[in-house]
Amino acid sequence: MSEYKSVRFVDVRLEGDFWKERLETVLARTIPSQHKKLAEYGLLDSLKLPNPPPPLRFPRHANGFTVQVFWDSDVGKWIEAASYALSHRRDPDIEAKIEAIVDDFEKAQEPDGYLNCWYLGREPEKRWSNLRDNHELYNAGHMLEGAIAYYETTGRRRWLDVMERYVEHIRQTFGTGPGQRRGYCGHQEIEIALIKLYRLTGEKKHLDLATYFINERGHQPPHYFDVEREGREAKGWEWQRYTQGTYEYSQSHKPVREQDKVVGHAVRAMYMYTAMADLAAELNDASLKKACETLWRDVMDTKMYVTAGLGPSAHNEGFTHDFDLPNETAYAETCASVALIFWAQRMLHLDLDGKYADILELALFNGALSGLSRDGEHYFYANPLESIGKAERWDWHTCPCCTMNVSRLVASVGGYFVSTSPTGLALHLYGGISTTQAVAGTKVTLKEESNYPWSGDIKVHVDPETDARFELKLRIPGWCQGATLKVNGESHAVNPVSGYVTIERTWKKGDVIALDLPMQPVRLYANPGVVMDTGRVALKRGPLVYCIEEVDNPGGRVQRFRLPRESEISVVSRPDLYGAVSLKAPAVEIEEKGFTELYRTSPPAEKSSALTAIPYYLWANRGNGSMVVWIPEAK
Amino acid sequence: MSEYKSVRFVDVRLEGDFWKERLETVLARTIPSQHKKLAEYGLLDSLKLPNPPPPLRFPRHANGFTVQVFWDSDVGKWIEAASYALSHRRDPDIEAKIEAIVDDFEKAQEPDGYLNCWYLGREPEKRWSNLRDNHELYNAGHMLEGAIAYYETTGRRRWLDVMERYVEHIRQTFGTGPGQRRGYCGHQEIEIALIKLYRLTGEKKHLDLATYFINERGHQPPHYFDVEREGREAKGWEWQRYTQGTYEYSQSHKPVREQDKVVGHAVRAMYMYTAMADLAAELNDASLKKACETLWRDVMDTKMYVTAGLGPSAHNEGFTHDFDLPNETAYAETCASVALIFWAQRMLHLDLDGKYADILELALFNGALSGLSRDGEHYFYANPLESIGKAERWDWHTCPCCTMNVSRLVASVGGYFVSTSPTGLALHLYGGISTTQAVAGTKVTLKEESNYPWSGDIKVHVDPETDARFELKLRIPGWCQGATLKVNGESHAVNPVSGYVTIERTWKKGDVIALDLPMQPVRLYANPGVVMDTGRVALKRGPLVYCIEEVDNPGGRVQRFRLPRESEISVVSRPDLYGAVSLKAPAVEIEEKGFTELYRTSPPAEKSSALTAIPYYLWANRGNGSMVVWIPEAK
Repeated sequence: MSEYKSVRFVDVRLEGDFWKERLETVLARTIPSQHKKLAEYGLLDSLKLPNPPPPLRFPRHANGFTVQVFWDSDVGKWIEAASYALSHRRDPDIEAKIEAIVDDFEKAQEPDGYLNCWYLGREPEKRWSNLRDNHELYNAGHMLEGAIAYYETTGRRRWLDVMERYVEHIRQTFGTGPGQRRGYCGHQEIEIALIKLYRLTGEKKHLDLATYFINERGHQPPHYFDVEREGREAKGWEWQRYTQGTYEYSQSHKPVREQDKVVGHAVRAMYMYTAMADLAAELNDASLKKACETLWRDVMDTKMYVTAGLGPSAHNEGFTHDFDLPNETAYAETCASVALIFWAQRMLHLDLDGKYADILELALFNGALSGLSRDGEHYFYANPLESIGKAERWDWHTCPCCTMNVSRLVASVGGYFVSTSPTGLALHLYGGISTTQAVAGTKVTLKEESNYPWSGDIKVHVDPETDARFELKLRIPGWCQGATLKVNGESHAVNPVSGYVTIERTWKKGDVIALDLPMQPVRLYANPGVVMDTGRVALKRGPLVYCIEEVDNPGGRVQRFRLPRESEISVVSRPDLYGAVSLKAPAVEIEEKGFTELYRTSPPAEKSSALTAIPYYLWANRGNGSMVVWIPEAK
Repeated sequence: MSEYKSVRFVDVRLEGDFWKERLETVLARTIPSQHKKLAEYGLLDSLKLPNPPPPLRFPRHANGFTVQVFWDSDVGKWIEAASYALSHRRDPDIEAKIEAIVDDFEKAQEPDGYLNCWYLGREPEKRWSNLRDNHELYNAGHMLEGAIAYYETTGRRRWLDVMERYVEHIRQTFGTGPGQRRGYCGHQEIEIALIKLYRLTGEKKHLDLATYFINERGHQPPHYFDVEREGREAKGWEWQRYTQGTYEYSQSHKPVREQDKVVGHAVRAMYMYTAMADLAAELNDASLKKACETLWRDVMDTKMYVTAGLGPSAHNEGFTHDFDLPNETAYAETCASVALIFWAQRMLHLDLDGKYADILELALFNGALSGLSRDGEHYFYANPLESIGKAERWDWHTCPCCTMNVSRLVASVGGYFVSTSPTGLALHLYGGISTTQAVAGTKVTLKEESNYPWSGDIKVHVDPETDARFELKLRIPGWCQGATLKVNGESHAVNPVSGYVTIERTWKKGDVIALDLPMQPVRLYANPGVVMDTGRVALKRGPLVYCIEEVDNPGGRVQRFRLPRESEISVVSRPDLYGAVSLKAPAVEIEEKGFTELYRTSPPAEKSSALTAIPYYLWANRGNGSMVVWIPEAK
């Protein structure tokens, strides 16, 4: 196990242009507009017991739609996102809004600690009767994460106290002791929150409860979800049917240590693997670590989109078979890529290996960030890799999980840049941060300056309060060829071990490192097993996957382009495109006009042309149009 | 309007190898095994009122499954298929089975003529309360078609009498008169059957009723389906939700003459267009004909797979947007291609134009015939154009509509070969038939001999009882270049008008025509709007679309092939492959072995290779494996 541990999100300041802009947008637009939507769609009213709001009809949803079992989680996740944002800039208005929510939750809480507004507002006697489908523990997890974040930012305990009482109730309810239910949630999440609570409070009982949930999961016969189903009076509509009669959907088909294939609902899977990796580290549990590594290899070898999107199928919001990675119908839920970042960070703290940081970075800049619009008020739930122009960002969703997942990610992204050990600092990501951390008996201020991800020209200032010997680990990304490094102007060898260059020396105030990570555009090819991508090529530069979008390539759908293998790809700075870097390459273009039949025996005419590619995460911000990540290749 | 009309299916004998084999299979295996399945799955028991069978659980269906609202139709359609088969060879065992079914239907019939076993067995008082979802008139249509076919083959009237009583009840129930319901079926079908009954009996009231159903459809406000919904007590689960709140699903969103885009459920659409074209001919209705032509152009220009498959989406079993023709997820229900054959035949009788016969032939040899296995006992419901090896023919289906649609098509295929007018004969299809028809005051025996579709070398013997002057129209397929023609050994110009060569002369016994239709393999390219097929090519020879299947191209998924544009395609006779003709071409093949990553920066290795393509309709008969119709092209 690695000695390195994560730092507190609140202790890292975002100073580089790229993330400062995203953070400002989240602060100024996303957090306030999300609160407005929570109010508008009844989520805030749903907390006001004993009178839950009247049924609402969602404009986008033909079925009609009323209070949902998962709404507590969305409110909890908004508090978490808002709290991370507040750590960058306090805001009395937002804090008052959080306090008002805490008021409602506090009033709703039962004397025994139970706190779920859906059950309390409707069928309080049926609490804990359907863990499989009804998200009670999942909600508790997100509420707890919100309470921890709010406490860490503001020091206010009230919301955390409410949640600690609820956790105590949960602890008494679930377990292997006499009179306890041997249950666990159909949607994993509380495990991550309990480990956070353990890390905050040092109280081992929270770690034990997380361990119980992970260890109990999938044990059978009897399967807990079968047991509780037998206990329910009215069976009603069975969500389980949707999941095709197996428990793979919720990764409870077998005990977690026996799982070796990534299956089922993608977000459930990623949250569970995150908790497993956390526990493996906390408990020094080799069997849990091995299971995590096996599952990691499975997803990396056969199941991840080039954008780090996960889960090809809308049907189960999750995984299907190996190499099934359709582009236009990709589900690739924003939440799943956000959760992959969580998992990758935990794996990185099990073994400080750049392969985990590479995926963390890939998911961050592509599959996750694509979920949030430039204006900070529109979202993608699914992140397809191809479109004929029908995909459109929406301003809210009947299941708004992704909205707050992407805002909490952006507001806390600083926490993924750095890790510390007693004897060192590791820098995983670049883009302009500063942080002060306790290392080797002193306080070290680390300031990283760069225009990353547009440029790999990076300066790192190391300022210990007093001279101190410790190691500084700098990640050399897996995508990078020809990195160079200077320490105080003197060349330093770049021989990364497990993706990191380690500089161990006595550091002094004013020390400065110059790291250059050349960013040549590259072509990527998919494994031939991914039959959808055969004969196609994707473009990447640095950590960013590119796509071609109709707005930059007018004249019809961008599916008309082919990219010759020999085309030189040039790099264009684009102040007009949010300061991004776009790519340009000579291409071949089908001329559609003369082709009036549906099928004919002569091929369509083609002409020489050029295509412009933009970072994938930026797509669908300038109107709707066609888009392609995997471009047919001409040879 | 054309003077040509269809002939009776029972009057055409199948004598060529291709169709004789399919017919023998249907006679010996499909019809008997389908009866066995109807029994095994409870469809026959469901007719035995007042005690319908206990709920059945279908092994393939997790939801459990009991008597279905559409089961009467499946039984009716089996009688129809069996009757066409009996016209080729009588079979006392099958006839006894039909009589037993007629016994049950006769006993089940109410005194007022009403006859629907689902309602009578369950909620007789709720008859006609949900035309939108519950298929009563659809069932009546298929039962009536079965009764007509059985009468035409055997001369037995009992089943037809039962159905005529039911039709009388329907006529009294529906219409614009006082006390009548202004309804029509959510699933079109009865209109086709009523027109058949009119043609059989000459009674105009049947034509009038079909006209009423077509004319009433889509009129609003109020929409009939809304009216009847208001009248239902318990709303229950609403199928309409599934159809996303519009009536496009059932083509009742506007009056049929105002419809100009092909929308909704594909089989519903094709059945309706078939009836519309029939009525346009019978009523000499120019506005109905124009609507048919507009809809025909819409489907031909933007919505048909190269196999004549229809309906890309499983969600609505139907149409989506223009050029949306995904290959692996194509729904392309067998029933829809069968129904396209019906529609094309009706259009052909509106205007004797080869463009309709071309599509009739295309659907017959590809999208429809692919639905039936070589052994005659396995089926495809969906007919995708690409597979990674997961598609498997099944021996039965919870909704067995396609099984009997393909068997009734094969058993009646002779009826699509020939049309007659008072002064002529038209031959649309080739493959070995003989028929005797009344033309120009005499009886003419027409015998067409060929090894079609494997060869275009065709002989047509024309034997009038007495010498007679009339026109013989021979279709020159749209796919054919360089056709030649000889009459009694003398060359005859081939200048087809609207796809037909017309030979008008005094015909004498022993006249013989030699028609040669060269069958060069061709490449097909899709309109660039079909983005799924950009850079891909399909192979076709004669009427047959080809595919590459793994069993002929071992070494991995066939998606590994690319076909160079300059590759010469050679023709191979295949006695080992059911006598088919396969195609062979030099190709380029990806070598998968060295590619162990999911993504990498270097392209996969390739080697020179060759691919073998087989007729699409033959796929998935030699085990499961990958398959591709649209092959990536190398240039």
